[in-house]
Amino acid sequence: MTKKLINHPDRVVEDMLAGFLLAHSDVARQSELDPRAIVRRNLHPDKVGIVIGGGSGHEPAFIGYLGDGGVDGVAVGNIFASPSPYPVLAAIKETDQGQGVLLIYGNYSGDCMNFSMAVELAEMEGHQLREIVVHDDVASAPRGHEEERRGIAGEILIYKVAGVKAKQGATLDEVYQTTEKANQWIRSVGVGLHPGSLPQTGKPNFELADDEMELGMGVHGEPGIQRTKMVSAREVARQLVTMICDDFDYSGAEVAVMLNGLGATSLLELYIVYADVVKELQKRRVRVYKSFLGEYITSQEMAGCSLTVLKLDDELKHLIDVHSDMACAHF
Amino acid sequence: MTKKLINHPDRVVEDMLAGFLLAHSDVARQSELDPRAIVRRNLHPDKVGIVIGGGSGHEPAFIGYLGDGGVDGVAVGNIFASPSPYPVLAAIKETDQGQGVLLIYGNYSGDCMNFSMAVELAEMEGHQLREIVVHDDVASAPRGHEEERRGIAGEILIYKVAGVKAKQGATLDEVYQTTEKANQWIRSVGVGLHPGSLPQTGKPNFELADDEMELGMGVHGEPGIQRTKMVSAREVARQLVTMICDDFDYSGAEVAVMLNGLGATSLLELYIVYADVVKELQKRRVRVYKSFLGEYITSQEMAGCSLTVLKLDDELKHLIDVHSDMACAHF
Repeated sequence: MTKKLINHPDRVVEDMLAGFLLAHSDVARQSELDPRAIVRRNLHPDKVGIVIGGGSGHEPAFIGYLGDGGVDGVAVGNIFASPSPYPVLAAIKETDQGQGVLLIYGNYSGDCMNFSMAVELAEMEGHQLREIVVHDDVASAPRGHEEERRGIAGEILIYKVAGVKAKQGATLDEVYQTTEKANQWIRSVGVGLHPGSLPQTGKPNFELADDEMELGMGVHGEPGIQRTKMVSAREVARQLVTMICDDFDYSGAEVAVMLNGLGATSLLELYIVYADVVKELQKRRVRVYKSFLGEYITSQEMAGCSLTVLKLDDELKHLIDVHSDMACAHF
Repeated sequence: MTKKLINHPDRVVEDMLAGFLLAHSDVARQSELDPRAIVRRNLHPDKVGIVIGGGSGHEPAFIGYLGDGGVDGVAVGNIFASPSPYPVLAAIKETDQGQGVLLIYGNYSGDCMNFSMAVELAEMEGHQLREIVVHDDVASAPRGHEEERRGIAGEILIYKVAGVKAKQGATLDEVYQTTEKANQWIRSVGVGLHPGSLPQTGKPNFELADDEMELGMGVHGEPGIQRTKMVSAREVARQLVTMICDDFDYSGAEVAVMLNGLGATSLLELYIVYADVVKELQKRRVRVYKSFLGEYITSQEMAGCSLTVLKLDDELKHLIDVHSDMACAHF
């Protein structure tokens, strides 16, 4: 059992939000419409709203991405569970400034159901909405079934693209089109080395032998595609890059790369893997334009990492280069 | 044994530096004088240089703080081991632009010895230098013996103060005086819940029972002052704030607070603890002016956190408010 710094198993999310709101009172506030909707202060007037959401336990995802050049509203679920439709609806109402709202969420059945229900309710109230469902995890369904795939760390770069595009005054359709382009051009895959644990119970959310790793594992410990003996950083990098480049043709392209730590994997290890990722990409004539290393979406103290690759054109390069000033992320 | 993403136990630091330099080639480069000295690109001309250093394994400390409003040179040691005098000397030579160099390091015997030796060598070559030894860890020696204390997460806020002060064109003496003021006004204490492991071996660097925690534990797992049964986040916050406020009179002051995760403790938990830290400080009439939550100095996948409190006057408030754009940190 993992020791956790909590006060009460039933109040984990509420206590976390209390601390978040104290630490980031300049950026974020709790919606008066629903306590599980956290929204940005000082919304840019006339801007398209960006609303995201998902389960808790993945911090800094998702509340950490509220801010300038980031997102405007976040619906907060229980640990590893989708938010209900009501905080999504509240976030839409709070952030729609007459230009409509783009909703972005990962492809999980609960999120799809609850965001869709919120969309129905909000459209009845006259809100203009578009939706982007992120499904970047190549390990979760084969080619030809891309829309069945789960959303993982690619979501973070998708928020960045949408957030900056909206900040620059684009219309809802324009923000949707650019963001959906990025969504088509992004691929991720993860590797799990050690489980995280549920903060309420301290119990691990999957099991893995002491000398094993699992390629393709999801951010909640969803089964991957191959469980093998632990290999070197170089071999992990080769496997991750191969899976991604076998799935989408990045050859000759400039790309953004995110190497995301899942919780317990040190930044030291991420840098070691990253050097090999760059080499593997170079072998395939893929040029890294910009890279992001760190913990962007975690699974408590899960060990392992995920690699994300996003093909860039001039528009996406420009959007990725604009600095975003979000609650827990500045990139 | 903990599984680690490495290639070879003898090349952990070199492989990490290779990845770091690829990821941050816009900010940092390897010194030609010594491969273990990493220095900033595009140094501001005529600025006082800031050189830091310490053992590896604590990433983002120390290389992550290179950058604008941060530090100019970092001497990189082996895992949990002081750098030798030569990379310190190289970093001094690379960053001295005629205005002298301020060296900042934590109070560990190896660092003190090797930085002092580098200072002797550099002074013989005509460099003008001052040194700040950070000793913020109240658990490591009693009151009246402050200068025997270890340096922990307080070092990061000290870099920030020095980096911004130097950026603003202050002289070496001015940078020294302001930074030393902050050094006198800062206190930290940590709590350990679970050991990290050495990346070369995967072996834990201390032992702690499944239901225990240790108050006052250092960032290398140095023994603390009290081993107890695991308690709630609220009680941990109370203990940390009490130790700090019993040691230094923050009552009535405005302060900067850093709540630093040691590696495996989730941001969710840090937010929960933070809400209670703010309450405990309020009880003692201490007002949080600015807060920093996240992983600033780690010990691999060690679980636990440290609390740092820095008293602010108008000058320090101003310096803390200036945005710094460092390789792994933007605050």
